[in-house]
Amino acid sequence: MATKGKQLFTTLEADGTLTVALEEVSFPDPTGNQVLVRMEAAPINPSDLAILVGGANIENAQFSPGKFVAQMPASVNAASQARHGLKLPAGNEGAGTVIAAGDSDAAQALMGQRVSCVPGNAYSQYCIADASMCLPLGDHSAEEGASAFINPMTALGFVENARADGQDAILHTVGASNLGQMLTRICLEDGLGLVNIVRKDDQVDLLKGLGSTHVVNSSADDFMDQLCAAIRETGAFYGFDPVGGGKLVDTSFRAMERVASERMTEYSRYGSTQMKRMFIYGRLDTSPTILTPSYGFGWTLSGWLMFPFLQSIGQDAMNRMRQRVRDNLTTTFASSYKTRVSLEEMLTKDAVMDYRAMRTGEKYLVTPWA
Amino acid sequence: MATKGKQLFTTLEADGTLTVALEEVSFPDPTGNQVLVRMEAAPINPSDLAILVGGANIENAQFSPGKFVAQMPASVNAASQARHGLKLPAGNEGAGTVIAAGDSDAAQALMGQRVSCVPGNAYSQYCIADASMCLPLGDHSAEEGASAFINPMTALGFVENARADGQDAILHTVGASNLGQMLTRICLEDGLGLVNIVRKDDQVDLLKGLGSTHVVNSSADDFMDQLCAAIRETGAFYGFDPVGGGKLVDTSFRAMERVASERMTEYSRYGSTQMKRMFIYGRLDTSPTILTPSYGFGWTLSGWLMFPFLQSIGQDAMNRMRQRVRDNLTTTFASSYKTRVSLEEMLTKDAVMDYRAMRTGEKYLVTPWA
Repeated sequence: MATKGKQLFTTLEADGTLTVALEEVSFPDPTGNQVLVRMEAAPINPSDLAILVGGANIENAQFSPGKFVAQMPASVNAASQARHGLKLPAGNEGAGTVIAAGDSDAAQALMGQRVSCVPGNAYSQYCIADASMCLPLGDHSAEEGASAFINPMTALGFVENARADGQDAILHTVGASNLGQMLTRICLEDGLGLVNIVRKDDQVDLLKGLGSTHVVNSSADDFMDQLCAAIRETGAFYGFDPVGGGKLVDTSFRAMERVASERMTEYSRYGSTQMKRMFIYGRLDTSPTILTPSYGFGWTLSGWLMFPFLQSIGQDAMNRMRQRVRDNLTTTFASSYKTRVSLEEMLTKDAVMDYRAMRTGEKYLVTPWA
Repeated sequence: MATKGKQLFTTLEADGTLTVALEEVSFPDPTGNQVLVRMEAAPINPSDLAILVGGANIENAQFSPGKFVAQMPASVNAASQARHGLKLPAGNEGAGTVIAAGDSDAAQALMGQRVSCVPGNAYSQYCIADASMCLPLGDHSAEEGASAFINPMTALGFVENARADGQDAILHTVGASNLGQMLTRICLEDGLGLVNIVRKDDQVDLLKGLGSTHVVNSSADDFMDQLCAAIRETGAFYGFDPVGGGKLVDTSFRAMERVASERMTEYSRYGSTQMKRMFIYGRLDTSPTILTPSYGFGWTLSGWLMFPFLQSIGQDAMNRMRQRVRDNLTTTFASSYKTRVSLEEMLTKDAVMDYRAMRTGEKYLVTPWA
C-alpha cells in the first residue's frame, strides 16, 4: 500500500511562468537498495535556490496557501529552456527516519534508524533514498543531521582537491558562510593554510573566534593590501568562490599575481610563472564573471561541483570523508539556522523574500511535519 | 672588438610616458653556447605589440626620426607598474646570419649559417642568441625563416596539448590569422577535427581553400546555429582564443553546452557533465573577459603561453616539433607579410597606427638593414 504525503514541485513553463506548489503524492514502496524516509528536517541551501526561485520576480508573485506563481525574467527564462514544462522536485538533502526498506542488506540495516540523506526531493514529507548515500545519525537529532552532506562534503572536497594538486593553503571568498566556518575548522584540524575573505567586521570577529588567522575584510580601505599580505604569508594561490558574478575571482587573481610578482627577479610582459587557480562552486551572484587582463597567462578558472568531484575520487575516499562528518557532526560540521518553516510556510512571500537573499548566517530549515 | 649596431628599446616611465627609440649599442662577443646573429628579418607579432605600443595614445604621440614618445592611459599604466623605468628590448623572433660563435660545438656548428632565432631583442641589427634555440635555415631566405618559432610552435603546441588531454578536435576563435592558417594545415595533416571561427566571408573562402571543413562566420545571422553544428559534427569541446576580451570565450562555452545538452536524457540544474575547456593565449582585445552563468559548472578556462608549455613537454618533444617546422617551412608553416619596414620606418606614425590594429593577414616584417 503506497504511502501518501505532501511534496514540493517547481515548474517553469515556456512562457516564463514559475509555479512552486505542494502536492499530495504517493510514494512507492522501496525496493533493492532503496529506503523510504519520513523527512523531519531539510535545509534551504544556495544550491537549492536556483531551481526553487531562480531569478523569478517574487515581489509581484501570486501567493496562495501552499503555492506561489511568479514570472521569470526573459533572459533567465531563455537560458532555462532545458527545464521548460518539467515538474521538478527540490531539496538536495535532509534528515528523517527510515520507515521502510528494500531487500538489500544495506537497506534493511537502516530500518528504523534516523539518517541523513541526499534524495533530491527533500522538501517533502517522505523521500525515497539510496541506502549507500544515507548516513545513520545515531542519537543525533534530525536538525543536527539535516545538513550533513552538501556543505560538509563540499568543504572536505576543497581540501581533498587542494592536497591532490599539491597545495598547502587555500583561499575562500565567502569565509563566514556555514560552509566557510566548516572549512575554517577543517583547515585548522588539518594544518592547511586558509585565507578567508569576509564583508563585515563582525564576520572577522566570528572567524577569528573560530581560530582563523587570516581573515580579510573586503569592506576595508586597505582590503587589497590585507589580501596580498594574507596570500604572501600562507602561499594561497588556489581558491574557491561561491559568488561567481562580478570581480571577486578577478580580485583574488590580481592579489595572487601581485604577491607572485614581488618574487620575480626580472620583468616579464607575460606576468609571473606562478600558477594561480580558482574554482567557482556557486552562483550567489548570477551576473557575469569579469576577468581583467591583469595577471598574465598563468591562471586557470574552473567550475566546481561536488558530485562529479566525489565520483572522481572514488568510493573509498568518499567513505573516509563521510565517516569524518559522522564523527564530528556537532563540532566541525555543525550548521546553524535562522528560522524553521513548514512546507506551507516556506512558500509564503515573507519567507521566500528572506531566504532568497542568501544572507550569510541566515539559513532556513524546512520541517515538513511542523 | 665589440660589434656596434642599432637596436630598438621601449621604456615606460612611472608618469605614463612611453618612449620607443633606436639606439646605437655595442654587442658583446658570444661566449659558450651563444652566437652573434646579423639580423635580416623580424616579424611584428601580436605578442610583441604589448611591450612595443601597449594601449599608448599613438594618435597624439610625438614622432621624430627613429623615435616616438606617447602617453599610456592611466589604467594601463597602473597595471604596468612592474616595468616602470625599465629600458626593454623588443622583438621575440627573427632570422639572420651567424657571424660569430662561442666555444661550444653547437655554437661553432652554426658559424656562417642563416638561422631563425628567438633572442627577445629581434628589432635590432645584431642579436646574441642561444645556439640550442636556433634553427638552421639551409637555403631558405631570412624572410621565410623569420616567423619560424612563435606561430609554428604555438599552433603545434595546441595540437600537442589537445592530444595529451585526449581530444580529437579543437576550436580556434580566430581562424584566418597566420597562426590559424597554420593550425588548419596541421590539423588536416594530423587528422584532428578543427572548428574555425572567422569574421568575414572572404576569410571563410580563404580557410575553405586550405581544406578546412568547419568554418563559421561570426557575422552571419545564424552564427550560433552554425557554431553548434560544427561542434556537434567534430566534438570540439576544447578551444583556443587569442582575443581574450569580450564574449568570444563565453560564446564558445555556450555553444559547447548547447550541443552537450542535446545529448542529456535528464534535466540537471547544474548543466551537462561534458567537460568544456578553453584557453586564452593572447589579448588582441584588452577589455575584460565576460563569462555568463550559462554552461553549468563543467568548464575550465586557462591562460596559455608557449614557453611554459614547451618547458612542460621536455626537450625531445620540442625537438620533434622544431624538426617538423624546419621540414615544412614554406608549406605548412609559411607566413605572409603585408609590408616590409626598416627599423626607422617601424617607428613612424603611419606604420605604428597600421600594425597596432593587428588586422588579420596584415602582418609587418622588420628588415633592419634595409
